[in-house]
Amino acid sequence: MDIKKLLEGVKAGAISVEEAETKLKMKPFDDLRYAIIDHHRQIRSGCPEVIYCAGKTVAQVEGIIRNMLENDSDILATRASEEIAQAVLALHPEAEWNPSARTIVIRRRSAAQAGEGRILVITAGTSDMPVADEAVVTAEFLGNKVERLCDVGVAGLHRLLSKLERIASANVIIVIAGMEGALASVVGGLTDKPVIAVPTSVGYGASFGGVAALLSMLNSCANSVAVVNIDNGFGAACIASSINRINR
Amino acid sequence: MDIKKLLEGVKAGAISVEEAETKLKMKPFDDLRYAIIDHHRQIRSGCPEVIYCAGKTVAQVEGIIRNMLENDSDILATRASEEIAQAVLALHPEAEWNPSARTIVIRRRSAAQAGEGRILVITAGTSDMPVADEAVVTAEFLGNKVERLCDVGVAGLHRLLSKLERIASANVIIVIAGMEGALASVVGGLTDKPVIAVPTSVGYGASFGGVAALLSMLNSCANSVAVVNIDNGFGAACIASSINRINR
Amino acid sequence: MDIKKLLEGVKAGAISVEEAETKLKMKPFDDLRYAIIDHHRQIRSGCPEVIYCAGKTVAQVEGIIRNMLENDSDILATRASEEIAQAVLALHPEAEWNPSARTIVIRRRSAAQAGEGRILVITAGTSDMPVADEAVVTAEFLGNKVERLCDVGVAGLHRLLSKLERIASANVIIVIAGMEGALASVVGGLTDKPVIAVPTSVGYGASFGGVAALLSMLNSCANSVAVVNIDNGFGAACIASSINRINR
Amino acid sequence: MDIKKLLEGVKAGAISVEEAETKLKMKPFDDLRYAIIDHHRQIRSGCPEVIYCAGKTVAQVEGIIRNMLENDSDILATRASEEIAQAVLALHPEAEWNPSARTIVIRRRSAAQAGEGRILVITAGTSDMPVADEAVVTAEFLGNKVERLCDVGVAGLHRLLSKLERIASANVIIVIAGMEGALASVVGGLTDKPVIAVPTSVGYGASFGGVAALLSMLNSCANSVAVVNIDNGFGAACIASSINRINR
Amino acid sequence: MDIKKLLEGVKAGAISVEEAETKLKMKPFDDLRYAIIDHHRQIRSGCPEVIYCAGKTVAQVEGIIRNMLENDSDILATRASEEIAQAVLALHPEAEWNPSARTIVIRRRSAAQAGEGRILVITAGTSDMPVADEAVVTAEFLGNKVERLCDVGVAGLHRLLSKLERIASANVIIVIAGMEGALASVVGGLTDKPVIAVPTSVGYGASFGGVAALLSMLNSCANSVAVVNIDNGFGAACIASSINRINR
Amino acid sequence: MDIKKLLEGVKAGAISVEEAETKLKMKPFDDLRYAIIDHHRQIRSGCPEVIYCAGKTVAQVEGIIRNMLENDSDILATRASEEIAQAVLALHPEAEWNPSARTIVIRRRSAAQAGEGRILVITAGTSDMPVADEAVVTAEFLGNKVERLCDVGVAGLHRLLSKLERIASANVIIVIAGMEGALASVVGGLTDKPVIAVPTSVGYGASFGGVAALLSMLNSCANSVAVVNIDNGFGAACIASSINRINR
Amino acid sequence: MDIKKLLEGVKAGAISVEEAETKLKMKPFDDLRYAIIDHHRQIRSGCPEVIYCAGKTVAQVEGIIRNMLENDSDILATRASEEIAQAVLALHPEAEWNPSARTIVIRRRSAAQAGEGRILVITAGTSDMPVADEAVVTAEFLGNKVERLCDVGVAGLHRLLSKLERIASANVIIVIAGMEGALASVVGGLTDKPVIAVPTSVGYGASFGGVAALLSMLNSCANSVAVVNIDNGFGAACIASSINRINR
Amino acid sequence: MDIKKLLEGVKAGAISVEEAETKLKMKPFDDLRYAIIDHHRQIRSGCPEVIYCAGKTVAQVEGIIRNMLENDSDILATRASEEIAQAVLALHPEAEWNPSARTIVIRRRSAAQAGEGRILVITAGTSDMPVADEAVVTAEFLGNKVERLCDVGVAGLHRLLSKLERIASANVIIVIAGMEGALASVVGGLTDKPVIAVPTSVGYGASFGGVAALLSMLNSCANSVAVVNIDNGFGAACIASSINRINR
Repeated sequence: MDIKKLLEGVKAGAISVEEAETKLKMKPFDDLRYAIIDHHRQIRSGCPEVIYCAGKTVAQVEGIIRNMLENDSDILATRASEEIAQAVLALHPEAEWNPSARTIVIRRRSAAQAGEGRILVITAGTSDMPVADEAVVTAEFLGNKVERLCDVGVAGLHRLLSKLERIASANVIIVIAGMEGALASVVGGLTDKPVIAVPTSVGYGASFGGVAALLSMLNSCANSVAVVNIDNGFGAACIASSINRINR
Repeated sequence: MDIKKLLEGVKAGAISVEEAETKLKMKPFDDLRYAIIDHHRQIRSGCPEVIYCAGKTVAQVEGIIRNMLENDSDILATRASEEIAQAVLALHPEAEWNPSARTIVIRRRSAAQAGEGRILVITAGTSDMPVADEAVVTAEFLGNKVERLCDVGVAGLHRLLSKLERIASANVIIVIAGMEGALASVVGGLTDKPVIAVPTSVGYGASFGGVAALLSMLNSCANSVAVVNIDNGFGAACIASSINRINR
Repeated sequence: MDIKKLLEGVKAGAISVEEAETKLKMKPFDDLRYAIIDHHRQIRSGCPEVIYCAGKTVAQVEGIIRNMLENDSDILATRASEEIAQAVLALHPEAEWNPSARTIVIRRRSAAQAGEGRILVITAGTSDMPVADEAVVTAEFLGNKVERLCDVGVAGLHRLLSKLERIASANVIIVIAGMEGALASVVGGLTDKPVIAVPTSVGYGASFGGVAALLSMLNSCANSVAVVNIDNGFGAACIASSINRINR
Repeated sequence: MDIKKLLEGVKAGAISVEEAETKLKMKPFDDLRYAIIDHHRQIRSGCPEVIYCAGKTVAQVEGIIRNMLENDSDILATRASEEIAQAVLALHPEAEWNPSARTIVIRRRSAAQAGEGRILVITAGTSDMPVADEAVVTAEFLGNKVERLCDVGVAGLHRLLSKLERIASANVIIVIAGMEGALASVVGGLTDKPVIAVPTSVGYGASFGGVAALLSMLNSCANSVAVVNIDNGFGAACIASSINRINR
Repeated sequence: MDIKKLLEGVKAGAISVEEAETKLKMKPFDDLRYAIIDHHRQIRSGCPEVIYCAGKTVAQVEGIIRNMLENDSDILATRASEEIAQAVLALHPEAEWNPSARTIVIRRRSAAQAGEGRILVITAGTSDMPVADEAVVTAEFLGNKVERLCDVGVAGLHRLLSKLERIASANVIIVIAGMEGALASVVGGLTDKPVIAVPTSVGYGASFGGVAALLSMLNSCANSVAVVNIDNGFGAACIASSINRINR
Repeated sequence: MDIKKLLEGVKAGAISVEEAETKLKMKPFDDLRYAIIDHHRQIRSGCPEVIYCAGKTVAQVEGIIRNMLENDSDILATRASEEIAQAVLALHPEAEWNPSARTIVIRRRSAAQAGEGRILVITAGTSDMPVADEAVVTAEFLGNKVERLCDVGVAGLHRLLSKLERIASANVIIVIAGMEGALASVVGGLTDKPVIAVPTSVGYGASFGGVAALLSMLNSCANSVAVVNIDNGFGAACIASSINRINR
Repeated sequence: MDIKKLLEGVKAGAISVEEAETKLKMKPFDDLRYAIIDHHRQIRSGCPEVIYCAGKTVAQVEGIIRNMLENDSDILATRASEEIAQAVLALHPEAEWNPSARTIVIRRRSAAQAGEGRILVITAGTSDMPVADEAVVTAEFLGNKVERLCDVGVAGLHRLLSKLERIASANVIIVIAGMEGALASVVGGLTDKPVIAVPTSVGYGASFGGVAALLSMLNSCANSVAVVNIDNGFGAACIASSINRINR
Repeated sequence: MDIKKLLEGVKAGAISVEEAETKLKMKPFDDLRYAIIDHHRQIRSGCPEVIYCAGKTVAQVEGIIRNMLENDSDILATRASEEIAQAVLALHPEAEWNPSARTIVIRRRSAAQAGEGRILVITAGTSDMPVADEAVVTAEFLGNKVERLCDVGVAGLHRLLSKLERIASANVIIVIAGMEGALASVVGGLTDKPVIAVPTSVGYGASFGGVAALLSMLNSCANSVAVVNIDNGFGAACIASSINRINR
């Protein structure tokens, strides 16, 4: 529904007041819908669509991507299995598949830059790397400069303490840790920047698939720590990117 | 330990290389300690100390505040019982006690302004107000402009939808909700700004003291939502403030 | 915003197309808001407002009720403490306070009748009665005919089996039970009517405040059982009433 | 036991009072049994038997279906694996297997129509479709008119808001959502019809296999929402159908 | 309904077959009801009624007891608060109130003896005594010979091992333990008699109100251990008594 | 250590008092050990050894069985995989493997009869059969007469109610049910015999692998119900057998 | 039973071999019992008895202490309420009551010294002090040298890092922390001494009464960390003391 | 950074005071880092590096081991799959792979001996052996004398009681048990040595993957018991080794 045309029709007498009122009441969201899509999907700002592959069939993902390719959209697919990746590569050989991050990226336009600020992605251990990879791919896809700091878990504190400058110079910090997730509190205590904590399912026994790290992070004694779902590198990158865009 | 003096002593031959080496190894954190305090406690940036009163005796809180008053610090005390508030008011009648927020604020200096950006605090229902009050008092204490949007729970969606402009114009949004906590996802879907979600213990039965809202927010289908602990209005304000300061 | 006036203004040329377009986009929900209130709050159908008192101060509840009395609304307040009840009775002595149900009802208009169908409220034991009382008060307030069947827990099955006729003649059945909550499955197996199951916090130890009954009801081997929150007699009555109104 | 024949035997003196008394006491449920089957299984109302395949061997399912085919029953089998489906198709090639819904339907009679009212099945995302498919197949099997509304999760609210008319025109609404399950509350706030909420196991990490959505739905701030077990599309359709039949 | 009279009426022609058939179908449980009460409530075996006081008002308990006193029943009331006990003592000064067990016993008839076998009640620590007292009062009320073995927790194994004879000579053993509940497994390994394990809420922190002991007992590596609810001394005595009556 | 020989040595002066004292203090359990084995393993009563296969390798199970065969023991192996069963059948072709119960039985002596009393095993649904099979095989192996009552879940109550005689004539009743586990309470209300309840992992979603049934059974409103671990048909049979042996 | 006397009786012919054999089999633990008490209660090593007051009545605690005073025992009572403390002080005015630690100590003998090694008790925050006090009182009561390091939570890491020497010089370290409990991992990474971690119930919301800290500590990425129950300062001191005694 | 060289440069005037100050502030942890590695990784004490293989790819483990082989380090790899083991054996055929413990050990130097004291590893059942194997391999790798006591679960207490001497002669005891984990309490009651308890995931149903044993051990009524994560044989050996080294 084109509100302007409708109003012009009313002005011109081609559409009665009553008819226009009904249309406006019945479909009041048509316009807003696109506005929200604009905002949310950032069509105007060149920000790409994201496909969450888990729970979708190969055929469904193929269908969505074919559609988006026709519209020349940039594409990010997350949680993509190898089977899905192969199908997408068959469709579009230029797609970049990252098997550790489980992401597929297709770039059709040049990315809008999110600004000068950097997002720093810190991981506690080697096993947290796939989640970090998802965060890095996502944050870069959203136009951010991203830096990594790996394997700096709190049991060997000196490794982290030797990198204070890099922590100090980031705009936002994503801390990714499994097991007891203590790294989020320690980093949070070393910076005044917002810390987005990602618990990972790394661990066994009483880690309960990441619950120990999740609870640890939610109860952080450092003040500026907020938490996303277990293994949710994608979500951490999204909010870090939205933070990184502020006041740009 | 004054590193500069030490080094000058080494240069001057007053201190041997071995002695200096030992001192530097034994107390390598003296300097850094103050630097971290600077950063964390923001001594240089005029940011005030915070006293978490829960689990402290009245005498302990009195002692800390007396000390801080002597140092002319600005003071924020959270989770203050009426008993603690009365004791602090007896010490310092100008203290501002907010019984709903359970906060005590003592201002000795004018607050550093965090910038032009506003923090928007949205609550789902009337019962979430004490948590919102804690967030508002904290965010203002940290020098932010804060705005509120109350009682806009998702069961009456029109109330929220009529306020889209206010949502669009904030820098950061704090969403405070108990029960099923769905408001965080709905707000997250209506904005591209970072959303800090605070689950509250409002509810009964299977809300499990805020766990239902917490899980709901952690599983938000909106991308830019991060979560703090149940009823943690203070922590939400801290990270929102640290976000609001970025790129200022 | 009055859409009709706006459109008439456009037709008359008093409001430009652009101005009207802006207003419609900026506040598209003003009209809808009232329509949704109509639906949800059932202003047109004579259905009363409901005040959930838990987490509200006495002053807040008084304020809301004073407002509603001025508007001649029918009022239902749930989870009302004795302190709140006394305050409301002081305001309006005709208010009906049910201390077991913890409800306050104020009737200003005659209730719209929900139809011929009856809602049957079945309880397993004496301790489940407060929840049943809340359900009965609510369902009657919403204009339904309500019948009760008490203390028919499955450990004495004959009590229930002797009442099959009453079960058969109801439109909707609310089953209220704590402990192991088995009554919902047994009743569900004896009827083809929809069963709304309410777990109660009656029990101790491994009942975990109603969780045992909740899980039992969610896993019912009877097909037509749906569940509401622990101790949520109000909610059960609401959905039972909405069912009882269908096809009236 | 045929009570009438027994009584005639007593009247005729062929059966002694004592013998009859013993029979009536010993097997008082024979008659009732069939009456309950009537009610429960709806033999009189043309409603078909349902086989829950999970935990049954292929041979067991085959045996049950062979038996039912001999009795010319309509058949619905749920949670049927491909292996079971192939075995049933071998037995009865006209069987309709829906691999997404995991259902097998065999129609021998024309379905009794449940009435004019429609059941509306709403899903939040693409991954919730198998549960929706089970609900739709079941509801149609039970003789209901069913309509779908897909992929209208709350993160893109406009999609849902543009369909208010369809929501308004249904008799009962089944809302199917995983992750944070907020859709149930939002739909519940937009309608006065009964909402049956189905949490799904869609999600990861702190969704705990559907627990987050389950708790969210149980704590819905919308009043007329009742909940069935995680992924229980079948059960939702059963109670929706029993609601849809009322006052027909 | 008196089935015999009905049948005699049919035989005599005073009642038609159809009328009798209707009565038998409509109220088929009247007779059975009493038979089940007989069985369950053990009217024939002189076994007394039991009143679970938790969740009942003083007035409700008084009413039930007054009724039972008129019928000369023996009475056991469990979970009786001091307030309830005082009210019952006012009604019937001969009532025996056990404040530790929270039981009230009123004896009007001499107890039926359950047989020669003894029930042995073993407790791990002093804090488990109230639960043991409830078990002992109940078991004696049901006519059993009961013996106790106290404070024989596994941290001082010698205390238990010095009592093997008493363990060997009991018919059934009730093991009552909080904290880690290990006593049930140890006793279960020392006897071939049935062991009924009662977890208690004794403990703190990760005992979770008895959950640790409950899980411990459910996972006992000793084979002949079955478990009742946390703090359920009454239930343990009931099943122990039903075991003690077998083959008498 | 042979206590008798030792004492005879002391008497004969061949062993000094001090040496004997040391031996008795150092190894005081050698004798008792065998006595406990007697009791526990029931060597004297002809009761067989039991091998729990889960977590044992094929080689370990083979080794144990070879050993026992040499000692002419009767053997029961539980939780035996097909791989283990094939290995045992290769060792001893007369072994009876029950793939549903996952048991292997090897009989070398005729079973000691546990007495006249019968154990009745009741199951709610077809999917509970493997657990029932384990219970039946075990109870028979321990020398008990066992009877079954299958598929009498509470959603079709008439099926159970038509079998009251069989319930009444058993010595002990094992009730096996998954989903909401309500059958235990219903059976417990229909009998004065001890009921051993076995929750099963049958169900999905909020059944949490049998937790819903477990909690339901622990909170049974019927008094004489005790519970064993989820899917523990073996343990239920053991305690039922120990009950069935009492007062024989 | 005096084994030596028994054996002398056998040697002397005063006791028959059979009689002695029976006695030895019947009461084989009399001797061992005292030996175990020796070991466990450390009668020989001058180590005092401990009374856990929670769940004991004032009269019970008074009785135990009166008894022990008569035996001139040293006494430690833990979890003592003020009411119990006042009663004990009335009995024995020299008793030392520590209201923060909730301990009562009565010294009759000089403590056996556990050795040169020190136990270091580290706390994260002020609110953890009562648990630390219980640990310190207990460890000193058991004869250990104890040192404290307070308020060194990981959010201000410099405070901890400035105390590395004290950490390095302890024999055993007790780390006491609530909220996210990260301090245990950080300390564990800074030392090669055994770390006993005590989670405390300090925190709110998703700390779940200490569960977050407990899980964090159980999943510590530092290797030499073992954990005791929430708030169990006493237990931590016991095991630390037993470690401190090794190889003394 | 070599502090000594830096200081000599300052002394010699080759490095300015300011430059040195900056370097020391910027990288204050370089030296400490190695010191901590020294301590933690025990380079000076000949203690080997440990590789936790879970969550690492084969290539990552190969890379780390190749590196360490070049440095002539002793190597312990835990949680090594067969695939990883084969890759490591291909690299270094002298590697010792223990498939039950899932460990790989490569010895290049002779182990530093931890002292005379022995670590005793006690297991409840055969299925706990892999965890015990991991503990034994680790403890021996760290230079400890290790002894085992297997299959002494509490259901056959005599087996344990016959080994009191071995328990008494150990320095530290590791107790490994699944199911109800009662062995930790029983052993803790029989010794005054520190007990490190390892819950295992052995069990089913309500053992919840080791949670029942974990809670049991955390709630031990024996005082000197501390607990590590479920199945964490490695961690238990680490802390036992650190205990065994004290006062050596």
